[in-house]
Amino acid sequence: MKIAIDAMGGDNAPRDIVRGALAGCRKAGIEPIFVGKKECIEPELEKWGHSAADTLIVHTDEYLVEGEAPAYALRAKRSASIALCMKLVREGKADAVFSAGPTGGVVASALGYLGTVEGISRPVIGGSFLGFAPKTVIMDLGGNIDSRPDQLLDFGIVGTVFARTLLDVPNPTVALLSVGAEEGKGNETVKAAYPLFKKSGLNFIGNVEGHDIVLGKANVVICDGFMGNVLMKFCEGFGKLTARWMEKQLLGKLPEAEIAALVKTLVSKTNAAEEVGGGPLWAVNGIVIKAHGRCTWEDVARSMVETKRYADKDIVGALKKELAAVRNNLKITPEQA
Amino acid sequence: MKIAIDAMGGDNAPRDIVRGALAGCRKAGIEPIFVGKKECIEPELEKWGHSAADTLIVHTDEYLVEGEAPAYALRAKRSASIALCMKLVREGKADAVFSAGPTGGVVASALGYLGTVEGISRPVIGGSFLGFAPKTVIMDLGGNIDSRPDQLLDFGIVGTVFARTLLDVPNPTVALLSVGAEEGKGNETVKAAYPLFKKSGLNFIGNVEGHDIVLGKANVVICDGFMGNVLMKFCEGFGKLTARWMEKQLLGKLPEAEIAALVKTLVSKTNAAEEVGGGPLWAVNGIVIKAHGRCTWEDVARSMVETKRYADKDIVGALKKELAAVRNNLKITPEQA
Repeated sequence: MKIAIDAMGGDNAPRDIVRGALAGCRKAGIEPIFVGKKECIEPELEKWGHSAADTLIVHTDEYLVEGEAPAYALRAKRSASIALCMKLVREGKADAVFSAGPTGGVVASALGYLGTVEGISRPVIGGSFLGFAPKTVIMDLGGNIDSRPDQLLDFGIVGTVFARTLLDVPNPTVALLSVGAEEGKGNETVKAAYPLFKKSGLNFIGNVEGHDIVLGKANVVICDGFMGNVLMKFCEGFGKLTARWMEKQLLGKLPEAEIAALVKTLVSKTNAAEEVGGGPLWAVNGIVIKAHGRCTWEDVARSMVETKRYADKDIVGALKKELAAVRNNLKITPEQA
Repeated sequence: MKIAIDAMGGDNAPRDIVRGALAGCRKAGIEPIFVGKKECIEPELEKWGHSAADTLIVHTDEYLVEGEAPAYALRAKRSASIALCMKLVREGKADAVFSAGPTGGVVASALGYLGTVEGISRPVIGGSFLGFAPKTVIMDLGGNIDSRPDQLLDFGIVGTVFARTLLDVPNPTVALLSVGAEEGKGNETVKAAYPLFKKSGLNFIGNVEGHDIVLGKANVVICDGFMGNVLMKFCEGFGKLTARWMEKQLLGKLPEAEIAALVKTLVSKTNAAEEVGGGPLWAVNGIVIKAHGRCTWEDVARSMVETKRYADKDIVGALKKELAAVRNNLKITPEQA
């Protein structure tokens, strides 16, 4: 298995990207293809005892930077590193893409070169963000704003595949995030989505409320990306603040190392999205991993191991199968979807 | 000053309602008028050394219960205790209403008997829910689902009055809750509301993100009631779970009493909405306090003292003034609002 690495994307690129990819790929038993400026990549390879001659490198001078309008930037830079990565997958020369570059650029190039699976129009971003509820994923976390009811159903399908294939939950429970448990509670979108979920054949358990996320009441919690993004960031901020508060309260009462360990655990449990260091762009017709711009080499390394899992579990194939099953339950053809 | 007390509303009514109102009104120097079943109220009065003869009681056999459709219930029970409370304010016989009864019934009777201030069509519910950010209020917390851009602006006006009059912030900063700081980030409603806020004359500082709530970056954070309600409940659940986690980690390392105190502080800091024990229905043309159904007598007592503050600060008058100022900035007449 080969993975196309956007060596130029991320705050610490190419340094941390190259180092992490080398370490992670060795561990996962996969081969990296580095895409970017040869003269920047080669010295990093050598630092870690790799010769440029023995490493797959696709050279390009162009790459995307934070703050550009993605569509325009991709048109202006036809050989941007992220675009070449996608092409490698489209041409069957790589099995997955990894990038810590600008989100808009990764999404736009994934859509442009690989497209989405039939029936879902945009990538879905989701996952666990709370370590206290490790068997719960939230979909969407910011990729889709102003979602329609049928898009919420797509998130439910993606989340089901996520929980089943990556969290090993055999029959994941799915719930709509709302302001009350009863059917009929919620905003217009949630109310319209409810009957779709009921008929979908997914393991739908109805609505859950904010506190139910924390309690892990459902394996898949469905919300609009606007809500999901605010919640995720609130959780991160809340965790950090609570950890600092706890640190202050415990100072002088416990050994400093013990306090530091508690603080670290609490921050990591409430910043699960950061901890993972990246996740797949679901619904793209291919495995594309988008990592945080500020990811460290350890994050990148972990991501390589995760990507191997995504490929082994065939997440794209599993999603297509689940989509077909739900469509059959709703009696709609892919063309209508 | 007199306050009409819905003695029949709440999980522990009339017991905790009567006890709390007696204690709180004495402290605040105001007089309660108990509305409900005389034969239920009188024994409770006597328990605390009050004679029925010296207490204002408005008798009625009817009251609302949880689970009824509010509009229908109010039509079927024309003398429901909550309805009589509102009438007392409308007729100038009381200065405020307190109820821990079903939210829908309190809102519907407030609308029916008192109406809203000119230009706002529905009550707004908001306040602090995070003790770590004591000078931040969030509007709306669940009263208004599927809000329009102009309603978000109403929340901004209400929140400004809230922060200025009740939190003593002279010139409260106002922000839209969104998925990015830049103008243009957000869902359709937020994007449409942004220019309205810019022109409003409120101290608008742009968008804030989820983590900014925690950091107290704005005094007034504006969101749809759907978002606000989910966030508030998430925060409550998160706080309780984190407190339990902390308790477990500290067991055997600190004296039990110290652990218990830490747990209590953390829970109270993350359940600020519960702590307050109730808040005003903003935008109603009169002071109406809605408390949690499960409020204790201490909550009720605190609420009496708070209600006195609302009256002293003339929150309804202050809101009307702020509304007029914003309308003037936007050059719209009350009829267009």
